Amino acid sequence: MAAYTATVTVRLKHGVLDPEAETTKQALERLGFELSELRSADRFEIDLEADDAAEAEERAESMAERLLANPTIHDYEVSAAPAAESA
Amino acid sequence: MAAYTATVTVRLKHGVLDPEAETTKQALERLGFELSELRSADRFEIDLEADDAAEAEERAESMAERLLANPTIHDYEVSAAPAAESA
Repeated sequence: MAAYTATVTVRLKHGVLDPEAETTKQALERLGFELSELRSADRFEIDLEADDAAEAEERAESMAERLLANPTIHDYEVSAAPAAESA
Repeated sequence: MAAYTATVTVRLKHGVLDPEAETTKQALERLGFELSELRSADRFEIDLEADDAAEAEERAESMAERLLANPTIHDYEVSAAPAAESA
């Protein structure tokens, strides 16, 4: 067993309205920034003990399915890597 | 000018309490998952027109400084890449 950090990125599916992102985009524009689109996503970094990166990724994927993402409105991506020393 | 997507990841500084992450961790544990720590972060994906990736990154960094991150409690990371065709 070794320490891994799995990263789960949860974003809204295409076509699902995101008023918070729209508000943030407008606030940036009022500050004088030019941008064509802004999307927001939640990112979870999960430290866990696993035999290898594939097992860490699989367990993080189960967590995303069971709790972190709502499959009706969210897509998610999972990756895993050995935990950084300084984490 | 070409289309770039800049990604800004905003996370709480070490030592800043994150009750939402703590609650999520406990909920996962109640579901039977084993994990040693969970951190949450906000991720902004910003589509913009720029001359090159360095310029896109620089502008996204200004946005993070001015609006997306609160320097008192947040650290942030910025990266930029040519926009994906399907974005």
